[in-house]
Amino acid sequence: MSLEAIRYRRGSLSILNQLLVPGQLRYEAVDGVERACEAIRAMEVRGAPAIALVGCLSLAVELHGGAGPAGDAAALEAFVGERLRRLVAARPTAVNMAREAERLRVALHRRARGPGATAQELRDSVIEHAEALLQKDLADNRSIGAHGARHILQRVPHAGVTVLTHCNTGSLATAGYGTALGVVRSLHAQGRLARAYCTETRPYNQGARLTAFELVHDGIPATLIADGAAAAALRERGVHAVVVGADRVAANGDTANKIGTYQLAVAARHHGVPFYVAAPTTSCDPALPSGAHIPIEERPAAELTDFQGVRVAAPGINVWNPAFDVTPHELITGGIITETGVYAPGELLQALVAARGD
Amino acid sequence: MSLEAIRYRRGSLSILNQLLVPGQLRYEAVDGVERACEAIRAMEVRGAPAIALVGCLSLAVELHGGAGPAGDAAALEAFVGERLRRLVAARPTAVNMAREAERLRVALHRRARGPGATAQELRDSVIEHAEALLQKDLADNRSIGAHGARHILQRVPHAGVTVLTHCNTGSLATAGYGTALGVVRSLHAQGRLARAYCTETRPYNQGARLTAFELVHDGIPATLIADGAAAAALRERGVHAVVVGADRVAANGDTANKIGTYQLAVAARHHGVPFYVAAPTTSCDPALPSGAHIPIEERPAAELTDFQGVRVAAPGINVWNPAFDVTPHELITGGIITETGVYAPGELLQALVAARGD
Repeated sequence: MSLEAIRYRRGSLSILNQLLVPGQLRYEAVDGVERACEAIRAMEVRGAPAIALVGCLSLAVELHGGAGPAGDAAALEAFVGERLRRLVAARPTAVNMAREAERLRVALHRRARGPGATAQELRDSVIEHAEALLQKDLADNRSIGAHGARHILQRVPHAGVTVLTHCNTGSLATAGYGTALGVVRSLHAQGRLARAYCTETRPYNQGARLTAFELVHDGIPATLIADGAAAAALRERGVHAVVVGADRVAANGDTANKIGTYQLAVAARHHGVPFYVAAPTTSCDPALPSGAHIPIEERPAAELTDFQGVRVAAPGINVWNPAFDVTPHELITGGIITETGVYAPGELLQALVAARGD
Repeated sequence: MSLEAIRYRRGSLSILNQLLVPGQLRYEAVDGVERACEAIRAMEVRGAPAIALVGCLSLAVELHGGAGPAGDAAALEAFVGERLRRLVAARPTAVNMAREAERLRVALHRRARGPGATAQELRDSVIEHAEALLQKDLADNRSIGAHGARHILQRVPHAGVTVLTHCNTGSLATAGYGTALGVVRSLHAQGRLARAYCTETRPYNQGARLTAFELVHDGIPATLIADGAAAAALRERGVHAVVVGADRVAANGDTANKIGTYQLAVAARHHGVPFYVAAPTTSCDPALPSGAHIPIEERPAAELTDFQGVRVAAPGINVWNPAFDVTPHELITGGIITETGVYAPGELLQALVAARGD
């Protein structure tokens, strides 16, 4: 089976500390929202879907353990609202945590206004909501994998296709299976994957550490390359499609994803290789008209200048270390792969409206 | 003054061990060709011009120390030929060592056929030839810097220009001053450089370790970025020109340079930013019709998977680690900057023929 980033049963949550992978597979207890925020900021857990899941589940664990006011439903609602604000603030670029927080707030408020609502009822509803998310993310990933694989195989009618991916979008970034890596897994499961190329993904090495680990673990034929070698790989190694994840997709299809994604999209366009973004609809943010409105987190210089506490770069050098970049929709030439289907960027908004009851 | 990669006086050669920079500045004695080949293969010294200089100077030191047959000029010529073959084989992609070896062979053969040639005369001529190279490389770099700066300032008429460069092409890659970094130094000396961006340059981190070190050392305003952030920097940080070095330039202008160069050129084209290659004419190889004929060295996987002996990447992952890639001439939109002037790729061959007496 695939690796698990998140282990949960009611009242108990632990996460694989991804800073230590692949050297160590150590699961750490997350007893509540404070610890979850720490883990999210430190990137012990990362990946937009996994961040939202750990955030919501940490709140569920905290509430199950009795945190927050008892008795008064309104007080509990306020407590939950404050906890959610903290979680949303932990990392700004991915939208999933913010979206789930908003949905939880709305659901809770509706419930709190109902006749005779008790704090315990609200508590239980938050817990059930978080648990349902975990199940839904896994199911959505499998749908993303199936839709993406089908679309790629229609577009690239080869017996075996070669796919290039960036960063980690696999089991470790989600509830399991993965988004872009879910597409790779689905192709492999159908016997239609020739090879997956994964980029190192500097400065945090999510590709070298995490994606490579998942690919080796699952026995998927895979090759690691430096980020700078991607264009050469597109030209010389028969790559048929590029598939990446997303931290946030704007209404027009512009997509924020791990730094380096934009450069990959430019290279894919230059080589006429279709470029896909794989993301659950919860990563889509129709409230933002374009990528220009997505906040881009800048991370500490030490991520680029040091390795495990050892200084690599010349002392005194200034650093620009944006964690993400925005790929404009016109470069997403393959499509946006969601759990409901694959859409051209221009079709996304309508598809979201059609798919969502809310 | 600039850092020195190479310290030479007659009979004595030492090189800065670039594997240790910036942590340590340690000069190591190179007593002859064997040690030079080791240092070149291990990348204690790197950069196409510096490799050729260390190669030729190591032979000069060895000959000055009495190596090789005495008396018989033909035997000495054969000895030198064998030493040069070893040096050329140490790294295949850069042409400079091969070119200098060929020139030395031709000059020596002419001399050996002369009336009454002695082994001692040949010895001295090799030593003088190597010493002249060192002086010429430094002078050529200053010319490259001046030509490149003038061309960029004509094309980009700003008070201060922002330049992005890749890998290390500075004092540490040459006899001093540098090729692409010589252009940066020249712009800075004229008070016309706003900022230099340097890429980390995975997997060997020449940008983070060496270029950043030179830029900080010289007080040049500079910012380090991940290789994957280059396209975002071109879009968002006002980069006016990209300037890189070359390991070999084919007759049509196709250029082999550090892996990642091709991707940068594609990104520069996408953003309409002029892309320059800075290289002495000794890096040009008119015998090769195009870049398809340039041998590309593949380096060990451990360069990508390990850091200072610590495993970073997932065990078992396959690796593709080409040290260089080829940028096709049509992407070299700024020009090829040599010590004799700046040429469009299509003008290069004629310029080389005009410039060379040989």
